[in-house]
Amino acid sequence: MRKSAKNKRYSPQSPIGIFDSGVGGLTVFKEIERLLPGEHIVYMGDTARVPYGNKSPKTVVRFSTENVLFLLENKVKLVVVACNTSSSLALDFLQKTFSVPIVGVIDPAVEKAVEVSPGRRIGVIGTKSTIKSGVYQKKILQKDSRARVCVKACPLFVPLVEEAMLSGPITEDIARYYLKGFKGGIDTLILGCTHYPLLKKIIASYLKDVHLINSAYEVAVKVRGVLRHSGLLNPGRRGRREFFVSDEPAGFMKLARLFLNKTTGKPKVINV
Amino acid sequence: MRKSAKNKRYSPQSPIGIFDSGVGGLTVFKEIERLLPGEHIVYMGDTARVPYGNKSPKTVVRFSTENVLFLLENKVKLVVVACNTSSSLALDFLQKTFSVPIVGVIDPAVEKAVEVSPGRRIGVIGTKSTIKSGVYQKKILQKDSRARVCVKACPLFVPLVEEAMLSGPITEDIARYYLKGFKGGIDTLILGCTHYPLLKKIIASYLKDVHLINSAYEVAVKVRGVLRHSGLLNPGRRGRREFFVSDEPAGFMKLARLFLNKTTGKPKVINV
Repeated sequence: MRKSAKNKRYSPQSPIGIFDSGVGGLTVFKEIERLLPGEHIVYMGDTARVPYGNKSPKTVVRFSTENVLFLLENKVKLVVVACNTSSSLALDFLQKTFSVPIVGVIDPAVEKAVEVSPGRRIGVIGTKSTIKSGVYQKKILQKDSRARVCVKACPLFVPLVEEAMLSGPITEDIARYYLKGFKGGIDTLILGCTHYPLLKKIIASYLKDVHLINSAYEVAVKVRGVLRHSGLLNPGRRGRREFFVSDEPAGFMKLARLFLNKTTGKPKVINV
Repeated sequence: MRKSAKNKRYSPQSPIGIFDSGVGGLTVFKEIERLLPGEHIVYMGDTARVPYGNKSPKTVVRFSTENVLFLLENKVKLVVVACNTSSSLALDFLQKTFSVPIVGVIDPAVEKAVEVSPGRRIGVIGTKSTIKSGVYQKKILQKDSRARVCVKACPLFVPLVEEAMLSGPITEDIARYYLKGFKGGIDTLILGCTHYPLLKKIIASYLKDVHLINSAYEVAVKVRGVLRHSGLLNPGRRGRREFFVSDEPAGFMKLARLFLNKTTGKPKVINV
């Protein structure tokens, strides 16, 4: 009953909604756009309140709820929570509260990590709040109770990326500082923050022979699955993209070029 | 006329209000408490939306206005804008909009720097938004048109302090990275962000023989002057202190210990 009601409310022409605390979710946007080029996409970056990674569960839940409400006003058929902190702290609440299908970034990364890890020794890096939530540990152990999980919060990685310091000795030192505990101890590492794929090269060169898991692609695959299952895939050829931010466009546009290697056009500004 | 109306509205028993984007303003709180121990103080840290330093003027003005309104609800007799970014971007607007006396952190630092600089070669470091606003350069040149001003945004300094990484090789490297352009070129450096006094030791050891200006003490002196002038100094012996934050208390309390070398008690949480 519920699903058919949903299907009446949404159509394949409805957009996919993506929200993130800022620009990081563009790594997810990029993969969804690549895998599902016919879909219309509404992206909302809460740049006025970024970052979420050092904030409390209650505050992250409140901000995330407001973001979903904004996307629903834009009549989205599915919401992607492209922020690891929001996915860690708010996804359960959002899925219970709203009837629209909501996809987070944690489960796809966990499934992939458990699938590819040869020795069940999985590391996770993320923001303070993500790591403190314990959600990655919990979900990995639910999938594979014999896995050994090591975690580390890396709060300087986001400002480094937003400074476009993607390489060089300072970034290498900071990477070493955070990652040295993993050396020799893990075979797979989940990049549990949407900014981290931009540091992939430096992380890979320090943690040689470790599988790095970037959930963006896995999230896109999951979105395709959910839409297909409910008959909501858009068969079109080239979807519209709309960008909204809560702070001024200039900063977002500059970072968007770093994340997408192309321009986004000027996002619209909303008040949150 | 206006002043006497003010004096009726406020009394010496009214508290001083201080706001900051987060914990950084505690460096200012500390000096005001030391210089004016009889004053009641209401401190408000907008920890849910911290940091302001990478946000646009419009957004910083909006958040700052909301913070002043909150302090006014608490019947403060004077507002201290203890955040450099807010002082740079919002002070003019706030002073025009509200009748309560409002003191920022820029002018006191500028006056001190111009006073002590032997060779008129003044450097300024701050957040991206503070530096981009150009307000320090403008005000220094207004005071001394023959001064030479060099500026540098140091966006990694705030996350470093909030990570409690106040010393060590990574912090030294980052300090060198930001400050190398000043080497030999300045005799005075304004620490244009309330977090930076915590990095004073490392900055001083790299920029030897440079006067470092921390505006916190100068702000306290200015506050005393304004209150004395309007007959609003509180002659009491030990004022009340009240703390409010917009995110959960735990993170604030932990950092407050770092900034004050003592505990603040549990702050109350407000929604912004």
